[in-house]
Amino acid sequence: MNQQPVSSALLVSQDANALAERFRGVRARTEAICAPLETEDYVVQPIIDVSPPKWHLAHTSWFFENFLLSELQPGYERFHPLYAYLFNSYYILSGKFHPRVDRGNLSRPTVADVYRYREHVTDRVLDLLASADEATIARAAEIITLGLNHEEQHQELLLTDIKYILSSNPLESVFKARDIAPAQPPPPLGWLDFAGGIAEAGYVKHDDGFCFDNELPRHRVLLNDYRIATRLVTNGEYVAFMADGGYERPELWLSDGWATVQSEGWRSPLYWENRDGDWHSFTLAGVRKVDANEPVVHVSHYEADAYARWAGKRLPSEFEWEHAAESLPVAGNLYESGIYHPAPATADGPAQFYGDVWEWTQSAYLPYPGFKPLPGAVGEYNGKFMSSQMVLRGGSCATPAKHVRASYRNFFQPFHRWQFMGLRLAEDA
Amino acid sequence: MNQQPVSSALLVSQDANALAERFRGVRARTEAICAPLETEDYVVQPIIDVSPPKWHLAHTSWFFENFLLSELQPGYERFHPLYAYLFNSYYILSGKFHPRVDRGNLSRPTVADVYRYREHVTDRVLDLLASADEATIARAAEIITLGLNHEEQHQELLLTDIKYILSSNPLESVFKARDIAPAQPPPPLGWLDFAGGIAEAGYVKHDDGFCFDNELPRHRVLLNDYRIATRLVTNGEYVAFMADGGYERPELWLSDGWATVQSEGWRSPLYWENRDGDWHSFTLAGVRKVDANEPVVHVSHYEADAYARWAGKRLPSEFEWEHAAESLPVAGNLYESGIYHPAPATADGPAQFYGDVWEWTQSAYLPYPGFKPLPGAVGEYNGKFMSSQMVLRGGSCATPAKHVRASYRNFFQPFHRWQFMGLRLAEDA
Amino acid sequence: MNQQPVSSALLVSQDANALAERFRGVRARTEAICAPLETEDYVVQPIIDVSPPKWHLAHTSWFFENFLLSELQPGYERFHPLYAYLFNSYYILSGKFHPRVDRGNLSRPTVADVYRYREHVTDRVLDLLASADEATIARAAEIITLGLNHEEQHQELLLTDIKYILSSNPLESVFKARDIAPAQPPPPLGWLDFAGGIAEAGYVKHDDGFCFDNELPRHRVLLNDYRIATRLVTNGEYVAFMADGGYERPELWLSDGWATVQSEGWRSPLYWENRDGDWHSFTLAGVRKVDANEPVVHVSHYEADAYARWAGKRLPSEFEWEHAAESLPVAGNLYESGIYHPAPATADGPAQFYGDVWEWTQSAYLPYPGFKPLPGAVGEYNGKFMSSQMVLRGGSCATPAKHVRASYRNFFQPFHRWQFMGLRLAEDA
Amino acid sequence: MNQQPVSSALLVSQDANALAERFRGVRARTEAICAPLETEDYVVQPIIDVSPPKWHLAHTSWFFENFLLSELQPGYERFHPLYAYLFNSYYILSGKFHPRVDRGNLSRPTVADVYRYREHVTDRVLDLLASADEATIARAAEIITLGLNHEEQHQELLLTDIKYILSSNPLESVFKARDIAPAQPPPPLGWLDFAGGIAEAGYVKHDDGFCFDNELPRHRVLLNDYRIATRLVTNGEYVAFMADGGYERPELWLSDGWATVQSEGWRSPLYWENRDGDWHSFTLAGVRKVDANEPVVHVSHYEADAYARWAGKRLPSEFEWEHAAESLPVAGNLYESGIYHPAPATADGPAQFYGDVWEWTQSAYLPYPGFKPLPGAVGEYNGKFMSSQMVLRGGSCATPAKHVRASYRNFFQPFHRWQFMGLRLAEDA
Repeated sequence: MNQQPVSSALLVSQDANALAERFRGVRARTEAICAPLETEDYVVQPIIDVSPPKWHLAHTSWFFENFLLSELQPGYERFHPLYAYLFNSYYILSGKFHPRVDRGNLSRPTVADVYRYREHVTDRVLDLLASADEATIARAAEIITLGLNHEEQHQELLLTDIKYILSSNPLESVFKARDIAPAQPPPPLGWLDFAGGIAEAGYVKHDDGFCFDNELPRHRVLLNDYRIATRLVTNGEYVAFMADGGYERPELWLSDGWATVQSEGWRSPLYWENRDGDWHSFTLAGVRKVDANEPVVHVSHYEADAYARWAGKRLPSEFEWEHAAESLPVAGNLYESGIYHPAPATADGPAQFYGDVWEWTQSAYLPYPGFKPLPGAVGEYNGKFMSSQMVLRGGSCATPAKHVRASYRNFFQPFHRWQFMGLRLAEDA
Repeated sequence: MNQQPVSSALLVSQDANALAERFRGVRARTEAICAPLETEDYVVQPIIDVSPPKWHLAHTSWFFENFLLSELQPGYERFHPLYAYLFNSYYILSGKFHPRVDRGNLSRPTVADVYRYREHVTDRVLDLLASADEATIARAAEIITLGLNHEEQHQELLLTDIKYILSSNPLESVFKARDIAPAQPPPPLGWLDFAGGIAEAGYVKHDDGFCFDNELPRHRVLLNDYRIATRLVTNGEYVAFMADGGYERPELWLSDGWATVQSEGWRSPLYWENRDGDWHSFTLAGVRKVDANEPVVHVSHYEADAYARWAGKRLPSEFEWEHAAESLPVAGNLYESGIYHPAPATADGPAQFYGDVWEWTQSAYLPYPGFKPLPGAVGEYNGKFMSSQMVLRGGSCATPAKHVRASYRNFFQPFHRWQFMGLRLAEDA
Repeated sequence: MNQQPVSSALLVSQDANALAERFRGVRARTEAICAPLETEDYVVQPIIDVSPPKWHLAHTSWFFENFLLSELQPGYERFHPLYAYLFNSYYILSGKFHPRVDRGNLSRPTVADVYRYREHVTDRVLDLLASADEATIARAAEIITLGLNHEEQHQELLLTDIKYILSSNPLESVFKARDIAPAQPPPPLGWLDFAGGIAEAGYVKHDDGFCFDNELPRHRVLLNDYRIATRLVTNGEYVAFMADGGYERPELWLSDGWATVQSEGWRSPLYWENRDGDWHSFTLAGVRKVDANEPVVHVSHYEADAYARWAGKRLPSEFEWEHAAESLPVAGNLYESGIYHPAPATADGPAQFYGDVWEWTQSAYLPYPGFKPLPGAVGEYNGKFMSSQMVLRGGSCATPAKHVRASYRNFFQPFHRWQFMGLRLAEDA
Repeated sequence: MNQQPVSSALLVSQDANALAERFRGVRARTEAICAPLETEDYVVQPIIDVSPPKWHLAHTSWFFENFLLSELQPGYERFHPLYAYLFNSYYILSGKFHPRVDRGNLSRPTVADVYRYREHVTDRVLDLLASADEATIARAAEIITLGLNHEEQHQELLLTDIKYILSSNPLESVFKARDIAPAQPPPPLGWLDFAGGIAEAGYVKHDDGFCFDNELPRHRVLLNDYRIATRLVTNGEYVAFMADGGYERPELWLSDGWATVQSEGWRSPLYWENRDGDWHSFTLAGVRKVDANEPVVHVSHYEADAYARWAGKRLPSEFEWEHAAESLPVAGNLYESGIYHPAPATADGPAQFYGDVWEWTQSAYLPYPGFKPLPGAVGEYNGKFMSSQMVLRGGSCATPAKHVRASYRNFFQPFHRWQFMGLRLAEDA
């Protein structure tokens, strides 16, 4: 999840007070997410994709230090001369950085050091907003808005990485306990019909909105008549696929997917474990029996694609999804619900487009016609990843509500599973 | 390159004699390609992608034995009970197969054995065509046509694999010597302008034509106004990119591409070597000084994409390419030229669309709307590879002329270089 | 370093009070070693050989829980049902254990949990000693003595692992600051002459002594006339080897050593870095300029062997070393010096046999004639590692003084460098 | 198997005619071994340890070209300027060489080319012997004798590598058919008792004998009273170990051995396969049912060691073996028997010390006291491998009779199995 705004397309709020308030809020939320953690939980990196929480805390601060304070604050001295090396993620044009694979090998800076770093950066940014001239504020507003959207992405990553960290441990710790009432079965799967023709896709510019550069430019796309499912695929439906030999039938799989099933020994979604005949899964509320009514989550693109083939359907394209979703309100089981786990659909009609799980599409992540990355190092945010990745849409139970929109493009390589990833079916009309 | 016809869309010649003649011709050409080889050249596999020539000879025979003779010839007994295991490539539904990585570890069957196998299969197919009833001939015609197109693909692979095998050896053998007159500079790069709108792409069905299933269905696509270069990018132009730090500037590269440049140490196209200040390259006619006038070849998608970014342009989409090419005659420096090396453009106007090099596009290899693979094991020919690969268009100096057409989709992972791969620029109008 | 006593050969103190006191002391020392650490330092595992300090703390407690409390304390309930899985190192007969490679991926149990576990085990062992009958005490004394020697080994590993952890971090933290007076040059290298003949090697049993099973049985060995250097090889001498192309001359190296030099890019001992022309090294007191007078440390067996060949000498056999050392007092720069770094020799005559650095010998780690491992899981302590490892002798600056003796056999694979490893020369008389 | 003579210790026959005759004979035998091969069999390298037969043919010629003709033949021009690069094995001081892992990727030079190379070298060596002066002959005799012993080692490697090549192929080719009469059970295992004391080991210099440098100097060793088995361990005995859970009981194994059993999935010796409940093995005469009376072969040091532990015995040291063997005639089932497979013991008393299988010892391969490698590149023959390898003694069914002797030290890493390797038990008296 590596995304970025096109500043030239951005009409940010230039009201410094409002910006400062939003800044304070996002920064505080990052820290609130980490509140239940033990110091040790901040340090480890069980797989290369999962970064230590303290790294996320520092990296999101480095982002403001590097792109904002060092640029716009005259005489700004970096908090520590080596933090740029340690906490740059992949911005080659911003200088050398510590190898990703070694993030979990660093005991220092300590968690307390990192929190001091955060506080320092937060204070300096607020200082800047309180004292800079109007032109600087205007430029700062762009970078801050980008930085806050960046930080919201890392809020989601914090939750998915914490989940992976706690799950990689036989002690099965609970991140956040909750009471879980037995869910009602979701409504039967229905279909939403859309007529084909030329539609538009991509972000619509308007006052004080924000988007990443990969959502631009708004452009025309050609759709055929299609239908898209009213709700997500459930665990119950996915178990039927498994029971029907889903993981043993090569004809259902893409070649790379089948090779991965073999090499990784996949027989179920990530985090699932069969205990005495019942499927259980690790959640941020601990290990629970798999609920047939909930959307299936933690499946790769390969599994989503195989499931759809087994069901006689297909995944939607990213434009079919966007076309279906753009008139719907951005509401659902998002970060603010505080559940951090997908929940069953509850009503007929279009459901779960936003929140619950990121929905794999059949679209490769590629530039829109006329796509232009930002100049400079922030131009590395999105564009350079447009190779061998697939688009996901709609946000998840770990996505802040204000962060997502119809045009939002998330993207991952097709083998990943540790994000809150699931699927919705589509078919030709 | 793994492709297949949609039988239901196929109107094959049911004239058994004509079919037999074409069959004899294609089979003979495969053997003619191998004529210059020493026995030892048939055996080795220097990298996993490059198969031993004797494997190609046997695999293309197995294809007919497995999908035709075993299906349509009553009482057909396979030439050898283990050849299906040894020479099936990746058709999981046709049974277990020998690991690809070990193809070069098999000394037996010998080359002579493999030629006996070929002869046996060729004779049995001709027997079938000479004696079967009309309905059988009709079904046979479909499979044989598929098998011959399959064999033509392997003819190209034979040439590229032989090139790799001979190049992986300090003895620098010559496959086929030829006199090479100094080339004239190509005409300056011009641009062909196309107006946007709804166009059609994909194979147009007509009598006795053939296409692979991935070219279907013919469907509508939306194009924006665009321009496409009249000719391919040359070695001279590519050397300018190299001289301008092309391989040292991360901002020009996709992230995966840059990682590959670093891990593989790429500093030039495959087969290039700097000898005393002059670039040389290995060709099927031996090591030669790189000719600035010839099209650049043996570049990955990453390199093609970086070059285009450096040049301020982009790669065409596969539909832009097809739209530009479909009115042009299928002619150029193809297999029949006997050169097996790209040649300079010689005239103004649209040039080199067919032959010389496969042209990387910016399109991921994905199913067309409504795509349906064939039933059964041949359904594995194309569809299962629609993940993490990029489309190439236009055929190369190693492609038989009758094999290629405007709608033809070749595909490879973006890091491959050993095929005759190059590029043509495009831009938004 | 995996070693164990032969209980049948062991005459342990059966005075429960004395034993309790020694037990308390060793346990407390382990914790004292860790006192300077930050919580985060306890967690990471930068390479597979280096275990997280909290793992050492827990593993040395598991040892007593598993081999003592569970065996001799009726009704003993384990502190946590999963700790045996998490903190067993390699005792297959004691049940399954967590993969070594993943020790640094565990955030839980926390450091505080581990200290509670230690306290629990310490208290229960003391309870046992305070209340058990004589026969139980006698058996407990054997296991406790083994466990304390085991814990002393882990005290040394804690120091070497902490060194590696802090060094693997650009922040260059100081574990324990100290003032370092400029060292005086050591005396010139002298030689100690020994006449050949039949000697004895191995531990001499006596009252209340302890040894590991691999030091037994005491047995006869045949020595030729030999000479052994009075002191260790110094940094200054080693730099002369480097300056003479030591790392570029294959004829000086064992084949495996040369391959390692190439693949690892070794050009100096571990922890050395050339800064502006001067060699510096990371120490537990921070980064310091390499002192020519100090013994060279953190060299592999390959480097020790290559140095000796370059010097026209050889490494001593383990029996030559033992024969030379057994009449010397066990004294020197050991753990109790508090320096945790090798120090220059200061006087003529035999020097540095104990402490400073473990000395590589030319002897493979193999069983003595008549060697018998202990029955049961503790039999895995030493014997199963008698393959492809080399013997080191003499203890280091991180070895507790009471832990080492003339017959003590340490052993590591020849490529390791992270222990305090150095060398002393020998030659035929 | 990398071994070399100490020229200074060598009193070679200086009778040029006799030498020429022996030279012709050894060279011809190498070619005779390869006579049953198909051209393709000469080319492949299924694992890195197994070299293509044509590589052996060329490498043994390069040895004479490099160390003899280039040194002693004035104006000698190498057969091909690149063959030194292609066919040097590991003599770093003789210049760069082609990576071992790529030997099987070279289709050229062809087999015919290699035979021409052999003939050329053979002729030039014979020319030299026919025309050189006495001093040159004397020096040549040393090098030729070394070269012939080197070539005899490669004769054994040719047989073991051919076996591996043919076995790595489902077609199960027969190298040399033979009639196999059902074997009689061997005599019961008896024991030979030897009194301890100081013995001598190593080669005894005498006229016109030859040894490798690693057999020198003859030196004193100390033996304890010991017993050594009269014959080798049989398949029947080994199957009893397997049936008793030999491959499932970690307590029987060295740690490295157990790790290898797990990672490689070993459940039997190499080449064994259970078909319908009966163990079969691949031999140079084809796949045969395992004969309980034959010596077990193709076991690693780990397996030999585990078997001995299971049997309550141990492996002999190399000096125990040599002491037991040195009074026995060098006779047995060696290369000249033409069977290329171990045969059952037939009589009471000391049996199978020479031939059948190389016998793993418990001795690490280390230098004898006072060992000195030859000067120059031939000094790389043996000495540089004295790390992490184990000694084997006695020769095998693929060893030429004149090649082996009591002092002969073969050596391999403990995990290897593809040589004819087995074991004989020993125990303390």
